[in-house]
Amino acid sequence: MMITTKNQYESLTEDRAILYAKELNFFPKDSELDCREIGDGNLNYVFHIKECNGEKSLIIKQALPYAKVIGESWPLTLKRAVIEANALKKHGEFATGLVPTVYASDEELAITVMEDLSHLKIAREGLIHYESYPKLSKDIGEYLAQTLFHTSDFALHPFEKKRLVSEFSNPELCKITEDLIFTDPFFDHDTNDYEPSLREEVEAIWNNGPLKLEVAKLKKSFLTEAEALLHGDLHTGSIFASETETKVIDPEFAFYGPMGFDVGLFLANIMVQSITREAEERIVILDHIEQTWKVFSSNFSTLWKSKGIESYKDTEGFEEYVVDKIFTDTLGFAGCELIRRTIGLAHVKDLDGIADDEKRILFKKQALQIGEALILKRNEIKSIHAVIALLEELHK
Amino acid sequence: MMITTKNQYESLTEDRAILYAKELNFFPKDSELDCREIGDGNLNYVFHIKECNGEKSLIIKQALPYAKVIGESWPLTLKRAVIEANALKKHGEFATGLVPTVYASDEELAITVMEDLSHLKIAREGLIHYESYPKLSKDIGEYLAQTLFHTSDFALHPFEKKRLVSEFSNPELCKITEDLIFTDPFFDHDTNDYEPSLREEVEAIWNNGPLKLEVAKLKKSFLTEAEALLHGDLHTGSIFASETETKVIDPEFAFYGPMGFDVGLFLANIMVQSITREAEERIVILDHIEQTWKVFSSNFSTLWKSKGIESYKDTEGFEEYVVDKIFTDTLGFAGCELIRRTIGLAHVKDLDGIADDEKRILFKKQALQIGEALILKRNEIKSIHAVIALLEELHK
Repeated sequence: MMITTKNQYESLTEDRAILYAKELNFFPKDSELDCREIGDGNLNYVFHIKECNGEKSLIIKQALPYAKVIGESWPLTLKRAVIEANALKKHGEFATGLVPTVYASDEELAITVMEDLSHLKIAREGLIHYESYPKLSKDIGEYLAQTLFHTSDFALHPFEKKRLVSEFSNPELCKITEDLIFTDPFFDHDTNDYEPSLREEVEAIWNNGPLKLEVAKLKKSFLTEAEALLHGDLHTGSIFASETETKVIDPEFAFYGPMGFDVGLFLANIMVQSITREAEERIVILDHIEQTWKVFSSNFSTLWKSKGIESYKDTEGFEEYVVDKIFTDTLGFAGCELIRRTIGLAHVKDLDGIADDEKRILFKKQALQIGEALILKRNEIKSIHAVIALLEELHK
Repeated sequence: MMITTKNQYESLTEDRAILYAKELNFFPKDSELDCREIGDGNLNYVFHIKECNGEKSLIIKQALPYAKVIGESWPLTLKRAVIEANALKKHGEFATGLVPTVYASDEELAITVMEDLSHLKIAREGLIHYESYPKLSKDIGEYLAQTLFHTSDFALHPFEKKRLVSEFSNPELCKITEDLIFTDPFFDHDTNDYEPSLREEVEAIWNNGPLKLEVAKLKKSFLTEAEALLHGDLHTGSIFASETETKVIDPEFAFYGPMGFDVGLFLANIMVQSITREAEERIVILDHIEQTWKVFSSNFSTLWKSKGIESYKDTEGFEEYVVDKIFTDTLGFAGCELIRRTIGLAHVKDLDGIADDEKRILFKKQALQIGEALILKRNEIKSIHAVIALLEELHK
């Protein structure tokens, strides 16, 4: 079913999307199709196409040549559609059932045709409303272990690894991360967006030399360490979930980077929930944090032993060294994510959506506090339990 | 004068090389040309072409599609000629006068046409014969600072840096290093080549768990850390020198890797001379070791301040962190080079050329001892003086 036709780029309409879908040989020949554009329109069109009198459906996602951010249009490479389709396919080889199936992709039109997941909900939305996702952390831990291990030098022939590094070179989208996660929030930069009540905390960050030194090291790691094919933007808004399913979507930021970045982004976004929730509701969140790391590290270890090709894989201490580095990096990257989601350009609804001013500001201060602690103490924190203890101190 | 014609690959003869040279518009139109093939014929042809009645001359280097190693022919990518030509040009932009000028290159024929340096001698040969190269360490320190700084994220726009990472993707030649420097010497592998008298020391290395753990970390760094465009094979056989000139040649192993790899390879090859020389002759070598690091680090620091574009460049401690990491990596990579040049596939004449069995074996044991110490103690050794002290302990 994989097709790649050569067309000049033009943005689809709902009618054109139906015509496009009919050419895919996905739906029965004479099906009448219904189409709705369901994206938020900022970066991509998302067309949901289904049979009027049947069960079959699919999604056509089309990248737009610009991004609408703070009311302005920024040009943004269409190549990200190719990166996204190829990352879904590559990650799907290993994280079976945890990413949408790609039916087709079209480089010229910047289109990815994929499995319809509209029966699921974005995990961030669900978590904000206390929905239960009993499989979430187990699935994400598994997804992380499978995708990161299998695309690393520990599993791939060096020729194939280096081929993938070039295939997934993604300078434009990486630069967004380099700026918005690792740089702007730590300087008095135009893109920052923080509530006036946080001014004191924000200035303290800008003037915190030791913190900035550690962020500089993390940024260097992001810029230089091609450890594995990352998702690159693994927050809870990039995950579809239900009680029984988890699907990771939207890997348009995929590139070869440090493994801890994916783990850290996911954990940071879960941690926000541990900050905002009351005692009883927090238990499940702390359990997600613990399970994510435990499932990731134990599956990674199993893969290391069963599928590792590195000559030094049985050298005493090497596996531990690798996993410890991922853990330390994870904490640092999680810290950066907590800070930028509070005072940088792109916020999270988990915090911004809290109507009560006093609570919202308190939680934001706590997000900054945890972020700073994770960055500064990441070499001393030796277990996921210590991370949980750090989070629980907020509530004492 | 840059040309890139599309020809089918065929290996040149001396006569064909003359015809090729005549097309370059380098020599006066009716010059009679003389040509000699002066390469060692293992990996490349090197044609030296000069006017019979004039001053002008040039070198045509052509990569061969195989490598003759231990009597066998291994196929080897011709792409290395493109990598070499492009690395010479890129490094030449910054290390002015320290690499040969490239006049032309031809991808199909795997040819690089460049400045004739046949008035100079290979530094390894000269050093073995106690020739004086007063500029060597200053020039190499400068070369390292200029090439490594200017091709790093500290100097380049991230789009350009990532473009270069892809351009210089060099899987086949990197694999040679991954195997022959970082893997085979530390295991009982067919490619190893060591004298029977070293069997005990060699087995001790194969059984040295802590040493292998540290080499595994260094190999991981080589595989993943795209810090700068390296030469990739910067031993003293890749350097032409005289009393007044230094030129770095043969960057066919160029790729984006950890900065300390280039610094470490050069220092390791100089260290071999400090092992083999008697007291008086050693002074100049120890001075080269000290000067290389001092000139590199002070020039790197000057470039950081004057040309650095990283937002965190003025963050207290960041420059020091970066330079300290390069130093630590340098020691580790130097240690690996010392070991592999003693017991791995590719040896150095500095050691193998010593006729006296007792002396040669002693020096080889010392090279292994220094190699191990540099790898194991690289995090504790804090200055180039401590490295020199380590080397001088051999002679007490």
